[in-house]
Amino acid sequence: MRNAFHDDLATIESTLVEMAQLVSRAMERATTALLTSDLKLAEEVISDDDRIDEMQHELDDKTLNVMARQQPVARDLRTLVTSLRMSADLERMGDLAHHIAKLARMRYPNCAVPEELRPAFKDMGVVATRIIEKVGKVIDQHDSVGAIELDQDDDEMDKLHRYLLTTMQNGEWPHSIEMTIDITLLGRYYERCADHAVSIAKRVYFLVNGEYATD
Amino acid sequence: MRNAFHDDLATIESTLVEMAQLVSRAMERATTALLTSDLKLAEEVISDDDRIDEMQHELDDKTLNVMARQQPVARDLRTLVTSLRMSADLERMGDLAHHIAKLARMRYPNCAVPEELRPAFKDMGVVATRIIEKVGKVIDQHDSVGAIELDQDDDEMDKLHRYLLTTMQNGEWPHSIEMTIDITLLGRYYERCADHAVSIAKRVYFLVNGEYATD
Repeated sequence: MRNAFHDDLATIESTLVEMAQLVSRAMERATTALLTSDLKLAEEVISDDDRIDEMQHELDDKTLNVMARQQPVARDLRTLVTSLRMSADLERMGDLAHHIAKLARMRYPNCAVPEELRPAFKDMGVVATRIIEKVGKVIDQHDSVGAIELDQDDDEMDKLHRYLLTTMQNGEWPHSIEMTIDITLLGRYYERCADHAVSIAKRVYFLVNGEYATD
Repeated sequence: MRNAFHDDLATIESTLVEMAQLVSRAMERATTALLTSDLKLAEEVISDDDRIDEMQHELDDKTLNVMARQQPVARDLRTLVTSLRMSADLERMGDLAHHIAKLARMRYPNCAVPEELRPAFKDMGVVATRIIEKVGKVIDQHDSVGAIELDQDDDEMDKLHRYLLTTMQNGEWPHSIEMTIDITLLGRYYERCADHAVSIAKRVYFLVNGEYATD
């Protein structure tokens, strides 16, 4: 039975890794769609989000099924419950990519982001994509060192987010209210995405080490 | 054993109801702090959020403990897993009240909300508080009719949220970029709070009826 259980766990973990890959790709493409006003790409990100939602449902059903069949306790039970939480985080990160793509579509053929902020959003997209890729590796390799390193990427995201806010408030922001609202929301989506990644990393750290990472 | 299990479930449910009450109260007080620039009240909401976070941890430990001891299957297992998700939703709703209170504190002694939008935010606070109270009742009474009714409150919140956005964009918005950003974020916090409430209601509906509510 233990072997069957560990096979189940391995399947669950590889699905989580696959979800992370899809979400990372969604975030990368949503950013490209946003910055290049690519309507077709935005539509793709929007419709592909269904696949991420579906994977979460399948994964959660599988996890509940394993719980019911294998009756795990202690660490094994905690691992399964943590998987449920990680799949919820990943699904939400997919939603945030979806929100970004929807905003790109809403402003098409215009670009929601003014030229001077495009480099910052490009960087936010790069950081988001990288942080989600790292999360996939952290899950795959139970890598608690990598989990801690994610904080640095999150700091980079916070810095970019602050840069957006100060740029809008430096007294020389010539853009419309609509654009101000868009940038505020977009900034929040990227920032929340990184927060969820950090939250997953902390869960992995806890599973590996049996204690919370100290900040 | 079954009786012990149902006692455990009842304890878990009553803790969820208690969490909902705390979150509802936090949202009510955060709104008052925001609209009356009440620094002391804002500080209270901020520090009281620790209690909500703590409750989530205690509740999750309890739920895992019940899973390990009672080895539930089928519906009982699903109920426990759903409790974990509801506690995560409630904790996040508490965070959103906390964000509102922090914004109130950041702008003190000024008010983050301009006079003409205060009635709308007052209404958003009322809807948020009501929706969370209803969620508590839905959990307490396994009330799937009440769960569906929550959608109406959510529609009301969406309407108020749209009103904020159109007011800012009607061409006569005389306020600073800072205020535009604040209103955009505040609107999002209230809207997300209602989303989480709807998500809890859907979970209860599923538990009671064994199927998802149709929109």
